[in-house]
Amino acid sequence: MTIQAIAFDAYGTLFDVYSIRELGDRFFPGAGVALAELWREKQIEYTHLRTLCSTYKPFWEITQDALIFSCKKLRLNLTLDAQNALMGQYARLQAFPENLSVLQQLRSDGLKLAILSNGNLHMLQSAVEAANMQGMFSHLLSVDVVKKFKTAPEAYQMAPDIFALPAKNILFVSSNCWDACCATWFGYTTFWVNRSAAPLEELGVVPHGEGRTLADVLRFIDMHRNK
Amino acid sequence: MTIQAIAFDAYGTLFDVYSIRELGDRFFPGAGVALAELWREKQIEYTHLRTLCSTYKPFWEITQDALIFSCKKLRLNLTLDAQNALMGQYARLQAFPENLSVLQQLRSDGLKLAILSNGNLHMLQSAVEAANMQGMFSHLLSVDVVKKFKTAPEAYQMAPDIFALPAKNILFVSSNCWDACCATWFGYTTFWVNRSAAPLEELGVVPHGEGRTLADVLRFIDMHRNK
Repeated sequence: MTIQAIAFDAYGTLFDVYSIRELGDRFFPGAGVALAELWREKQIEYTHLRTLCSTYKPFWEITQDALIFSCKKLRLNLTLDAQNALMGQYARLQAFPENLSVLQQLRSDGLKLAILSNGNLHMLQSAVEAANMQGMFSHLLSVDVVKKFKTAPEAYQMAPDIFALPAKNILFVSSNCWDACCATWFGYTTFWVNRSAAPLEELGVVPHGEGRTLADVLRFIDMHRNK
Repeated sequence: MTIQAIAFDAYGTLFDVYSIRELGDRFFPGAGVALAELWREKQIEYTHLRTLCSTYKPFWEITQDALIFSCKKLRLNLTLDAQNALMGQYARLQAFPENLSVLQQLRSDGLKLAILSNGNLHMLQSAVEAANMQGMFSHLLSVDVVKKFKTAPEAYQMAPDIFALPAKNILFVSSNCWDACCATWFGYTTFWVNRSAAPLEELGVVPHGEGRTLADVLRFIDMHRNK
């Protein structure tokens, strides 16, 4: 078997970024879904722009910027209370229910596990703790070290470096199709957790595996082991 | 007066990318607006991803990829007829009504004008011709030469290079707030044609001027001239 380690994306993959829509709905009745979606979209857009323009700032701050913009765009009056509550929720996002047992199984299969995320370290530690995933990962890799967000190669390079493995021997797992596609370009073996049954991005590249939940990663690993 | 030349963004600024919504509505009744918006969003996202990952391909192809994805996402059955018609429309987008007289005025004020666009040259030539703007611009600058899309510095560098002027002596005009903001970071004097009265992007940077139509660029130039 060639896969010796797994690098997981965090937001959307291990932690449900849309879980904040309930809280959004509490502050802005009926607008929770629209807010969660625009917030996420702007957050990612700002990481792209700041990486292209070499104007990096930490993901926590970008997340806050994206929240403020989204509320302005949707004409929602973001009080400081609402802002603090929504940002606080982001620090302790719900994890997907299958995660913990999947991670435990992968570890008992002898795989080394890491998170490779846009999130800064404080955010990642907080989310891992809130999800009771302490001890599951040998490394929490934040792009904050290289000051470039995904999908810059410097960001993807962190896992091969820390594991001292070629990218193709590391399975990169993301629920964000663009992330799985760009990681495939980078050289990883890749798995797309397509939770919403979305169409494949038209980028001319296909992740090596696809499933609907993190549990499908186990099936992918087994298939490759039995080859 | 320090502004000696103007570089215009093309799509959204000179040419109305949302004008394709009528055609979209003809093929997909009721879905024209959603299609036009998602198509534009994915088009820009793909330029970011391909620039970050050094997997450039021409804007025309990216525009087609974005159309195909958007139809899949919106569950619209994109026939080859519809695809050809929508892409054909993109090659001859409607121009905004005020454009021609504004460009003529700026030229008669002695300013050198260029387009600086993600579009490949063939697209730009086709759009300029369809809008009867031949002869308005001394240069059609396409990022296709540097193989990096905006907002990469290599893309913005094209106008200072061709005009042999510092970026601050060139007014960069865009209706896309992200474009005007990132051009400000780059060093241009910038003007945001905020056609839809959108909120400012939360990027910590503000374009030097703002208006609602291209005609407001005249006011900005006059103000700076009279200083």
